Amino acid sequence: MLNKVVIFGVGLIGGSFARSLKKAGAVGSVVGMGRSAASLKRAQELGIIDVIGGDMAEALQGADLVLLAAPVAQTEAILAAMAPHLQPGTVVTDAGSTKSDVVASARRALGGKIAQFVPGHPIAGRETNGPEAAIDDLYVGKKVVLTALDENSAQDVERVAAAWRACGAIIHRLTPEEHDKVFAAVSHLPHLLAYALVDDIANKPHADLLFQYAASGFRDFTRIAGSSPEMWRDISLANQSALLTELDAYLAQLTGLRARLAAGDGAGLESVYANAQRARHQWITAIEAAEAPPSQDKAD
Amino acid sequence: MLNKVVIFGVGLIGGSFARSLKKAGAVGSVVGMGRSAASLKRAQELGIIDVIGGDMAEALQGADLVLLAAPVAQTEAILAAMAPHLQPGTVVTDAGSTKSDVVASARRALGGKIAQFVPGHPIAGRETNGPEAAIDDLYVGKKVVLTALDENSAQDVERVAAAWRACGAIIHRLTPEEHDKVFAAVSHLPHLLAYALVDDIANKPHADLLFQYAASGFRDFTRIAGSSPEMWRDISLANQSALLTELDAYLAQLTGLRARLAAGDGAGLESVYANAQRARHQWITAIEAAEAPPSQDKAD
Repeated sequence: MLNKVVIFGVGLIGGSFARSLKKAGAVGSVVGMGRSAASLKRAQELGIIDVIGGDMAEALQGADLVLLAAPVAQTEAILAAMAPHLQPGTVVTDAGSTKSDVVASARRALGGKIAQFVPGHPIAGRETNGPEAAIDDLYVGKKVVLTALDENSAQDVERVAAAWRACGAIIHRLTPEEHDKVFAAVSHLPHLLAYALVDDIANKPHADLLFQYAASGFRDFTRIAGSSPEMWRDISLANQSALLTELDAYLAQLTGLRARLAAGDGAGLESVYANAQRARHQWITAIEAAEAPPSQDKAD
Repeated sequence: MLNKVVIFGVGLIGGSFARSLKKAGAVGSVVGMGRSAASLKRAQELGIIDVIGGDMAEALQGADLVLLAAPVAQTEAILAAMAPHLQPGTVVTDAGSTKSDVVASARRALGGKIAQFVPGHPIAGRETNGPEAAIDDLYVGKKVVLTALDENSAQDVERVAAAWRACGAIIHRLTPEEHDKVFAAVSHLPHLLAYALVDDIANKPHADLLFQYAASGFRDFTRIAGSSPEMWRDISLANQSALLTELDAYLAQLTGLRARLAAGDGAGLESVYANAQRARHQWITAIEAAEAPPSQDKAD
């Protein structure tokens, strides 16, 4: 049971965390912090938060847990403002999509208090945002990756893990570097590729004709290109090094496929296509098997 | 009203064409032809076809319309077997995903009878196949692109168009070359890109770890990599030239994005992402507006 939780950013991610903790009876009171007074007021009206925090020292006073769910670009500034007021009993976590850069920011901002920061990344999202979008089952059965630091105590990591488990999430553990390599490959690169394709087509002189014949396959392939450009600019830059590595591997892959296509090498093309189809089928089968029974904590 | 229709290939595409014509009361009898006796028998049991054709001359005798819905690799052989028996009153069309190569095959196979061949491409599909998959509303509201030849008479083109309209489809007209350029960009290239990404990831030493964290964005992006490798090998080769052009444009686009990423050019990345997001949003809005009223024939 958490007595007091402070949430920076009361939109989809932070608001759903608050709603989920409340539903589970796992929190006493929730204090909302953020730059938008209107969002904080709305979150309070909706019962997502109990108190709108004003002064940082007062907000942090006696807090068990702080979640940073504001845009990642604000992370360092928020942590720096928090640092002088952070008491020994408070654990801070975040919800950013990249981790190495967040850890670097946190080290700069928190200095000797870095042990109190347990980085995290809930793998959940929807296309909506703001307090209205917050729901109490967003995290049920979803993964939350914690990238604990050497400085973190086991109890502090467990406090963050237990809060996410109370929301119905499944805890996974990676290092920040592993996390960023993994998500560069399976999330950040696909976003860049989808944006690149739609922009490529939109810039052609006959774009209108092309879009007229785009069908359901194109729609699914490019769905992630409907995501926030600002957010994905920030993620791309925050994970620049790992994303460049994945992009270069993909460029080499495409160059190889181009050579097979130009040579009319049907067997060569088919072997790549068939390997992809097989791997994807295995992956989908494994996901569906994992999702079939009620969600259980796998890693803790 | 078509008196007699002959269909080569009684799976999803051909079988749904037959079912849709029957539902509309637009056909007297349907003759099924194909390499699989079991599929033909099943199609007859299901009421998709009335007669299993045996001898080519007899099957074509008095036919108003012939649809080729067998795998595209068989097109030239079927047309060549058909040619000696094709009577002046019969119009032949097809359902292939590429058109320039089909036209070239048809010219070789049909020679002086090429005027009777009206190439077509119904933009509809599902992940199932075989006679069991055939449904009577597969084409309702869907586009069918006819790529008429200079040799085709207006009446023959209209006979094909009317049959598809009876199935609920909307007729569009392109040249074979336009068709292949358009579908290289909005369909064939995305398939190649999705196959390439999954194969790239599957071949990494830590593939299992990566797939474990792939989520809904990855699932949608790669859905088309679940398609038949043989079919997409054939489509890639059949549309080699247009696909190479689109792939080269995309490689140039990615190389440009890589340079922006490597330079930490956030504004440059964001402009590409934002342009893509805007274009996709406009496209989706236009699709939804077009799909809102009951389907109507737009082009004929």
